[in-house]
Amino acid sequence: MGAPVFYHTNLSVDEIILDENESKHSIKVLRLNVGDKIILADGKGNIATALITDNHPKRCKLNIIERLFVSPQDKGRTYNLHLLIAPTKNAERMEWFLEKAVECGIDEITFIETERGERTKVNMDRLEKIAISAMKQSKQWYIPKINLPIPFNIAIKKVEGEVKLLAWCEEEKGVLLRSQLANQPKSIVICIGPEGDFTLQEMKDALELGFAPITLGNTILRTETAALFSVMACKAILA
Amino acid sequence: MGAPVFYHTNLSVDEIILDENESKHSIKVLRLNVGDKIILADGKGNIATALITDNHPKRCKLNIIERLFVSPQDKGRTYNLHLLIAPTKNAERMEWFLEKAVECGIDEITFIETERGERTKVNMDRLEKIAISAMKQSKQWYIPKINLPIPFNIAIKKVEGEVKLLAWCEEEKGVLLRSQLANQPKSIVICIGPEGDFTLQEMKDALELGFAPITLGNTILRTETAALFSVMACKAILA
Repeated sequence: MGAPVFYHTNLSVDEIILDENESKHSIKVLRLNVGDKIILADGKGNIATALITDNHPKRCKLNIIERLFVSPQDKGRTYNLHLLIAPTKNAERMEWFLEKAVECGIDEITFIETERGERTKVNMDRLEKIAISAMKQSKQWYIPKINLPIPFNIAIKKVEGEVKLLAWCEEEKGVLLRSQLANQPKSIVICIGPEGDFTLQEMKDALELGFAPITLGNTILRTETAALFSVMACKAILA
Repeated sequence: MGAPVFYHTNLSVDEIILDENESKHSIKVLRLNVGDKIILADGKGNIATALITDNHPKRCKLNIIERLFVSPQDKGRTYNLHLLIAPTKNAERMEWFLEKAVECGIDEITFIETERGERTKVNMDRLEKIAISAMKQSKQWYIPKINLPIPFNIAIKKVEGEVKLLAWCEEEKGVLLRSQLANQPKSIVICIGPEGDFTLQEMKDALELGFAPITLGNTILRTETAALFSVMACKAILA
């Protein structure tokens, strides 16, 4: 699939009009023309081949000629990964984490409100855009589900996974991430705390709900580095 | 070692004067005072405990009271990692790669000039600063050696490693990184090409010199993501 990829939410109709941003990108940046072939993706596994019928720089028109559904089993990964993460004070650090995480493969991200967290708001519009762009860039067909911040206590009750882990900085309490992945789990949940770490109470609450403490090694990682390391470690060991 | 860490190149004398930047950080930002204890690191394994004797905001004076050498064997890793990387067009992407790579552990970085590379210059001063800052942040005692760009052909002749790998995008040609790490190599060299990948000739040149092609999986990674993935995969599997 060498054709450029564009995002569109509804691929069930035959005639598609790209939004202003995607139109500009296709016509002004990539200089595509009437008759050129592009790939449309909805971020939920639906993809379509389409031909440009009107190269309008703000309302580029397309006709779908072929449809395909890529099932979640064909993501190219053997596991489902859900990350719970305390948003960093610096929003940019969350944004690049997201870009890289999507490139490497992640299914769901839930932002959590923690005792020592520095931020409880995230810019969902911007994060969605980054996720879409990273999906297109890395030629994947799924964007992760991104959930607004919820209290940590509630989040850990809601999530389900074959393996549920909590990164905990006091090394002696946790085992290495790779030993928790040794049995090739099919679904993994990992909690990444704020810069100041989870409190003892938060850790205890998680342990009671079946979470296991892990260490990410003996160097101190920033929140977004720890989060990305979790994603990349799963890819390195399991994908 | 809860005391803040500062960088200084020469720890062999007893009286140290921090540079303007480090002085400002210690006195104005951290509000340290005469008698407060700090840690000095030279990025080469030498660390020292020192007491502030003059809290001058531009020329903070210290007296070393204890010295320690952390040998390379005590880095907390079982392997030595040297990355060869084609610098990205966007300098910022190299900078965050470096920050994260230092946090996770890397020994040497050589920038390479490749056929399809988009940039042959890097800002060494800025990269050194980022490496020092990441070293302090993650409480490590070594900064990686960073080498100015050299032609790829020359670089692959110079580097030595128990395992020498080249990330190659045409998946069918390479094996997964993890299978190359299965025998717990003690020294690893990994080459990461530019966005347009290494040329066939570049790959052949490397293979002749004993490099093995690897794939980083079935999603397309940006150069800096591929580089960071290599670093984090080594940490996840070996550290």
